[in-house]
Amino acid sequence: MQLFYQPGIPDGTLFLEPEESGHCIRVLRKKGGDKITITDGLGSIYTARILEANSKKCSFEILETESLPPKGYNIHIAIAPTKNIDRIEWFVEKCTEIGIDRISFFTGKYSERKILKTERLRKKSIAAMKQSIKARMPIISELQKFEEMLNTVDDNTDRFIAYVDHSNNDSLFRLASKGQNYCVLIGPEGDFSSEELKIALSLGFRKVNLGNSRLRTETAGVVACHTLNLINS
Amino acid sequence: MQLFYQPGIPDGTLFLEPEESGHCIRVLRKKGGDKITITDGLGSIYTARILEANSKKCSFEILETESLPPKGYNIHIAIAPTKNIDRIEWFVEKCTEIGIDRISFFTGKYSERKILKTERLRKKSIAAMKQSIKARMPIISELQKFEEMLNTVDDNTDRFIAYVDHSNNDSLFRLASKGQNYCVLIGPEGDFSSEELKIALSLGFRKVNLGNSRLRTETAGVVACHTLNLINS
Repeated sequence: MQLFYQPGIPDGTLFLEPEESGHCIRVLRKKGGDKITITDGLGSIYTARILEANSKKCSFEILETESLPPKGYNIHIAIAPTKNIDRIEWFVEKCTEIGIDRISFFTGKYSERKILKTERLRKKSIAAMKQSIKARMPIISELQKFEEMLNTVDDNTDRFIAYVDHSNNDSLFRLASKGQNYCVLIGPEGDFSSEELKIALSLGFRKVNLGNSRLRTETAGVVACHTLNLINS
Repeated sequence: MQLFYQPGIPDGTLFLEPEESGHCIRVLRKKGGDKITITDGLGSIYTARILEANSKKCSFEILETESLPPKGYNIHIAIAPTKNIDRIEWFVEKCTEIGIDRISFFTGKYSERKILKTERLRKKSIAAMKQSIKARMPIISELQKFEEMLNTVDDNTDRFIAYVDHSNNDSLFRLASKGQNYCVLIGPEGDFSSEELKIALSLGFRKVNLGNSRLRTETAGVVACHTLNLINS
């Protein structure tokens, strides 16, 4: 099944954006009257019929709306982007496939990457959402300083910081319980500073490990996301 | 910590191969008398002292050997390589980081990729093993036809095939139990043929899903590997 993306449908937008229109009309050669499937990335999937098969602005009418029930849990991963941008793109793609609600990026004291263009990451996420036939597009926030980002974490969230030290045998898998809102902090290649750890702990984050292996930043992010999905499966 | 790799140590090899020697002597500028840490990829980590700091053949003597205890479980993933080679390289890298014992590759009826060079995959795996300070290098087999590959799966293995159909609500997470030898089959982008599924079922493989999401081949492989590690954590 081919899924198209138009986030504006709830606000009354009844055409595809230029890129999606081109894919629909020029690449897939859809015609007026053909049925297509569209998601708004907000939890709904629409069966629609093409009205004008315009490769720049393909208009449609909605025949049927299917709104997914709430999942009953919410996964927010806040991560320090890696030096190598491919690795963070991969993290965004894989978490979108596996299932994630919100991705925040932060710079910490030991971050090597201080600049991040999120536009390309959003595109990767949209492609992954369409590929895996999901109706929910994660919220992807701009890069912020660690402390600023912490202020954006929702109240009423089960808070974890992936941090390994000798005094810490708690794993995310054992500590997280089903049906919660979660936020997991994943540090940069150089790890969190002790000051950052202290701030996080003071805000109710609990130290957890993600298993027995020493993982790269982006792997830790995917593993945390998958662990929380498994707990809720 | 920097980990070097010399699989021949148990057979008496007491020097690093050219690539590792170059990294040790030319890049890291180690000198005669310096201590280095080496793994054989077979479960042992050696503390060694450099004898001759030769950038093509760095010789050493072993001061101390630490052999890891057996893990008590064994993860074998057999996967159809993806059309895009980056995706399967990524699968090998991530599974090595997370923890895997054996990777087999097969071509199925609907495989798009019929040729696979495993040399580069082994290099990726070695790099990931060193990066994540692991002492075990997965066995990586050459590409085989599906039926041939099935003959190489060990007896006494808990066998699963990732296959989603409407009659199948069993997940790997629920079905796999702790402390076993596992083999999970992951099909190509075009999925298994019904004939292939039949053969696998006749050989004792059980159909499982890997969660609620539709996953790409390489993501399914990583998710299966991580699920089995979590069960054993």
